[in-house]
Amino acid sequence: MRFTALKPFERYLPILDWGKTYNRDALTNDMVAAVIVTIMLIPQSLAYALLAGLPAEMGLYASILPLVAYAIFGTSRALAVGPVAVVSLMTAAAVGNLALQGTAEYAAAAITLAFLSGLILLIMGFFRLGFLANFLSHPVIAGFITASGIIIATSQLKHILGINASGHNLAELVHSIFTHLNEISIWTLIIGVTSTAFLFWVRKGLKPMLLNAGLKPRMAEILAKAGPVGAVVVTTLVTWMFGLQNHGVAIVGSVPQGLPPLTVPKFDADVWTSLFGSAVLISIIGFVESVSVAQTLAAKKRQRIVPDQELIGLGASNIAASVSGGYPVTGGFARSVVNFDAGAETPAAGAFTAIGIALAALALTPLLFFLPKATLAATIIVAVLSLVDFSILKTTWNYSKADFAAVAATILLTLGFGVETGVSAGVLLSIFLFLYRTSRPHIAEVGLVPGTEHFRNIERHKVETNPAILTIRVDENLYFANARFLEDYLYDRVVGDCDLKHVILMCSAVNDIDTSALESLEAINHRLQDMGITLHLSEVKGPVMDRLGRSHFLHDLTGKVFLSQFGAVKELSA
Amino acid sequence: MRFTALKPFERYLPILDWGKTYNRDALTNDMVAAVIVTIMLIPQSLAYALLAGLPAEMGLYASILPLVAYAIFGTSRALAVGPVAVVSLMTAAAVGNLALQGTAEYAAAAITLAFLSGLILLIMGFFRLGFLANFLSHPVIAGFITASGIIIATSQLKHILGINASGHNLAELVHSIFTHLNEISIWTLIIGVTSTAFLFWVRKGLKPMLLNAGLKPRMAEILAKAGPVGAVVVTTLVTWMFGLQNHGVAIVGSVPQGLPPLTVPKFDADVWTSLFGSAVLISIIGFVESVSVAQTLAAKKRQRIVPDQELIGLGASNIAASVSGGYPVTGGFARSVVNFDAGAETPAAGAFTAIGIALAALALTPLLFFLPKATLAATIIVAVLSLVDFSILKTTWNYSKADFAAVAATILLTLGFGVETGVSAGVLLSIFLFLYRTSRPHIAEVGLVPGTEHFRNIERHKVETNPAILTIRVDENLYFANARFLEDYLYDRVVGDCDLKHVILMCSAVNDIDTSALESLEAINHRLQDMGITLHLSEVKGPVMDRLGRSHFLHDLTGKVFLSQFGAVKELSA
Repeated sequence: MRFTALKPFERYLPILDWGKTYNRDALTNDMVAAVIVTIMLIPQSLAYALLAGLPAEMGLYASILPLVAYAIFGTSRALAVGPVAVVSLMTAAAVGNLALQGTAEYAAAAITLAFLSGLILLIMGFFRLGFLANFLSHPVIAGFITASGIIIATSQLKHILGINASGHNLAELVHSIFTHLNEISIWTLIIGVTSTAFLFWVRKGLKPMLLNAGLKPRMAEILAKAGPVGAVVVTTLVTWMFGLQNHGVAIVGSVPQGLPPLTVPKFDADVWTSLFGSAVLISIIGFVESVSVAQTLAAKKRQRIVPDQELIGLGASNIAASVSGGYPVTGGFARSVVNFDAGAETPAAGAFTAIGIALAALALTPLLFFLPKATLAATIIVAVLSLVDFSILKTTWNYSKADFAAVAATILLTLGFGVETGVSAGVLLSIFLFLYRTSRPHIAEVGLVPGTEHFRNIERHKVETNPAILTIRVDENLYFANARFLEDYLYDRVVGDCDLKHVILMCSAVNDIDTSALESLEAINHRLQDMGITLHLSEVKGPVMDRLGRSHFLHDLTGKVFLSQFGAVKELSA
Repeated sequence: MRFTALKPFERYLPILDWGKTYNRDALTNDMVAAVIVTIMLIPQSLAYALLAGLPAEMGLYASILPLVAYAIFGTSRALAVGPVAVVSLMTAAAVGNLALQGTAEYAAAAITLAFLSGLILLIMGFFRLGFLANFLSHPVIAGFITASGIIIATSQLKHILGINASGHNLAELVHSIFTHLNEISIWTLIIGVTSTAFLFWVRKGLKPMLLNAGLKPRMAEILAKAGPVGAVVVTTLVTWMFGLQNHGVAIVGSVPQGLPPLTVPKFDADVWTSLFGSAVLISIIGFVESVSVAQTLAAKKRQRIVPDQELIGLGASNIAASVSGGYPVTGGFARSVVNFDAGAETPAAGAFTAIGIALAALALTPLLFFLPKATLAATIIVAVLSLVDFSILKTTWNYSKADFAAVAATILLTLGFGVETGVSAGVLLSIFLFLYRTSRPHIAEVGLVPGTEHFRNIERHKVETNPAILTIRVDENLYFANARFLEDYLYDRVVGDCDLKHVILMCSAVNDIDTSALESLEAINHRLQDMGITLHLSEVKGPVMDRLGRSHFLHDLTGKVFLSQFGAVKELSA
C-alpha cells in the first residue's frame, strides 16, 4: 500500500532511489562514519568469529561483501550490517551440532547456514512475510537478549582464564569452567582482566574525561569508540615483546592475508535439513534485531524503512557472506547507533566500511598474529554485558503477568537449554497466553451514563438500566475459542430473570464473528426465542455487518440491529 | 464459578446429586430407553470393533463397564457412551502403527490406548482444561467428521466385496481395493449390498410406512431403530442355513461367551510414547463430540452439563474400558439422540444398557458365529454416510474465507494423510489464520453521526469531523503481533497533515494492551509530541485502564483519557 508509488525496480533496488540525490556532502559524511565504524568493526568482527567458533578471518570476510550487498538492497540509511554477538552465538549452537569446532566441516557448515538463512530471508521478502517477525513480542526479545548476553559473557570466561571449556547452556558452561579451573593461565588472566577493566572504563569514564580535557564532543566520542582498538594494539605489543605466547597466552596466530576467498555452500540434503530450523530462527531474530534498530534510527530523521525490503537486503547480505567465506550476518545494534551518530547519511557508508575492512584484510592481518584471544574475549564481554537488563522482569510483573511469564520462560529456558529452545518456547508461550485470554473474554453488563448517550459497565459506573432490557458488551472478537463461553455466560445470566424481554448484544468491541461464533449466535437466538426473549445487536462494525449480511443470521434474528446502543435502548424502552 | 455451590464430593460424583431424587417414574423411563439403546448397540459395538481392527467381543466389552463408570461420574442425563465410529477409526490408525491387526499385541495396544486416553481426560478434568477443546473450531470438526465418514465408508467396502484391502488414507484404501478387485466374493457382495440397501431403506422409508400402517409414532421409531438387528438376524440365519461361510463369506466366528475379562494396560515407556499423541487427539475429539451432543440434548430440557466434569466422566469410562478388555470409548451422537428420544431421564439409563449388553455377552455370543462381516460393514456404512456433509464448504466459502481454508485443509489432509494429520493441520491453520487476522487489524477513522453522540467510520457513514482532530478507532486488541502495524499506520496518516493538533485513539474495541503494544503507544506518544500533536485516549475499558494505571504511560501521555468519545471531541473542539 505504502510503497506502491515506487516502480518495481526501485522497490527492489533502493539504491536507485537514494543514489539519484547523492552528493558531495553526503559522501563526506558517509566516509567519516565509515572510518569510525571500521575502527570499531575490526576487533568486533574478529571477536565474534571467535565466539562463533570460527577462524578470525571469517569475521573480516563477513564484514566486506555483505555490507556492499546491503548498501544496494537495504532501505535503512544507518544500519551497520555484519557479524553480531547473538547471531554468532546461535551459529555456534547450530553448527556445533553438525561438526567439531576447528574442522573444515565446521566452517563449511557456517557458510551453508549463511546461505540458507539468506535464502529464507529472500523468500520471506518476496512473499512479504515480514509480519511473521511481529510474533516475537518485545518481552520475549528482551528476555532472549538478556539471557544470550549472560551465556555469551560466560562462554568468553574461558578465554579470560586461559582454559578449555564448552557448552551451549549456562549449566554446561559453568560446570565446564569449574572442572577446568586448575588449568588457569596467569598471564592470560592478567591480560584478560586488565583488558576488561580498561574497556569498562573506556565505556563509562573516558568520554567525560576527554570532554573535561577540552576535546570537542564528537572527537571525544570517536576516541571512546576506538578504545577496543587501543586494547588490541597494546596487548598485541605486550604479548609480542614478552613472548607471552610461550607462557600459556592463546593468540590468534596466523590469519591469511588477502581478500575473501570465493566459497560455495554445501548442497547436501542432510546438512540442509539439520540446519533448517536454526536458519529460520537466525533469520527471524536477525531480522527483528535489524528492523528495530533501523526503525528507531529512521524515526529520528523522519525517514521510513520498508520491512519487507529489509528482508531482501539482509537476505542478499547473507548470500554474499556465504559466497565470500563469511557466516550469518545481520544489523548490529551498537554499531548502527555509532554509524548514525557519526553522521552516516546513506547505505553508502556501509560500502565504505567494507572498503576499510578489505584494506585491513589486505594489510593488517599479519599484525594480528600476536593478538591474545583474551583481548577479544574482553571486548565481547564488555559489549554483551551492556545488553543484559533484567528490568523487563519487573516491568512486566507490574504490568502484565502473561508477559512476565513469557519473559521468565524465555530467560530460564535460554539459560537452561540454549537459545533456540528459549526463544521458541517464549514465542509459543506468548501466543498460547494470548489465545487463552481471548478464549475467556471480559464480558460486561452495561447501562446508560446519566446525561450522556454513553454506556458503561454497571459494576464500575453509576448508570441507568431497565429491568426489561439486558445489554451485554462482549470485550472480544467472537471466534471458535470463545463461542461456547458466550453461550454459557448468557444462559447463566438469563435463566430465572423473569422481567427480561430484550437482550442487546453491544458489539462495539467485536471485530470479527467467525463461523463457529455465528453458530453460537444462532443457537442463542433460538434459545432466547424459546424463552420469549428477543435478541438485538447494537454498534456492529461495518466489516462485521458485511459478513453477517452474507449469512442467514440477520434474517433469523428475532430482534433488530441498531446503529447505536443509545438508539437501541431508546426504541426498546418506548 | 457456576458450580461452586456444590460440595466437592458432589462436584466429582454427580450421581449423588441426581440419585437423591431418583424415583419409580425415572426408573421406568430409563429402563425403556436402555432396552432400545441395547438393541441398537449390540450390532454397532460389534461393527465398530471390526472397524478398529479388533475382535468383535471387544466392542461388547467396551459397552459394559465404561457405561457404568459414566453413569457414576458423568453429568449428561442422555449421553450414551460406548464405541463410536470416528474414535474406532482413530484407534485403528494409532494401533496399526504399533502392531499387526489380529495379533495379541494389537489388542493390548488398544487397551493401553484406552488407559492413556482415560488418564489424559482425567488430568484435563482435574486441572479444568476443558477449554482446550474450544480450539477445535466448528468448521474443523465438520470437515474432520465428513472426511472421516468417507474414509470409514471406503474402508468397509472390502467387507462388502469380500476382499482384502487396507490403508489409513483414501488413496491407499482405493488403490488397495482396486488391486484386490479380482478376489471379489459374489455371496459376500450379495449379502453386503442387500444389507446396505435394506438399512438405507429402514432409515428413510420404514418409519413412514409403519406410521401409515397405523402404528404409534414411538413404536414406529423403536422398530425403525431395530432395523440393523433385523439385518443381523436374517443374514446370520441365511449364512447358517446355506453354509455360505464355505462359499467365501467372511463370518464373525467364535466369540467368547461370558463377562469381560480383567485386563491390564501395558506399562511400557516405548508403547506409551508412540501412543501418546494419538491418545491426546482421541481424548480431545471424543470429548468435543460428547460435549456437543450432551449440550444440545441438555438444552432441550433446560438442563446443564459441566464440561470439566464430563472430562472426568469420560476419563473414568476409558479407564474402565482398559481394565475390562475394551478400547477407547466416548459419547456417540446417534445413540445419544435415540437414548434421549426414548425417554432416558438420568445416567442410570446407561447403567441399565450395560446390564443389557452384559446379558448379551453372556447369552447371545454363540448365536453370532455365523454373522457375516458384510452385514456389520453395511451398518457402519449406513451410519457414517449420514455424517458426510459437504455443505460446510459452501457455508464457509460464503461467510468466511479463513474458515473455508480451515475446512478445506482439514478435509483434504484427512483424506490424503489420515485423521491425525488432518485434524492437527485444521487446528493449527485456524489458529494461524486468527492470529494473522488480528496482526493486521481493521482501523477506521471516525466522525460524529449528526444528531447523536455516536461516532462511526468516515468512509461508511455521513459524519462530522474537525480538521484539527483525528480520531482513530483500532478494531483489535493491541498486542505484540499488531503493535508495529498501528505505529506504521499512524505515522503514515499523520505525516504531512499540517492542520492536525490532536489525535484521539478511540479504544472501544481495544480489550487488552500488552507490554509490546504499550511500548508502541509510548513511542507514538513521543513521536507525535515531537510533531506538536497531542495524543488522547477515549472510551478505554475498565480492565485496560486498570492495567495502564500500573505503568508510566498515563503519566507521560501528552493528552487526556476521556470517558466518552463525544466528551473528548466536545472538549477538544472548544
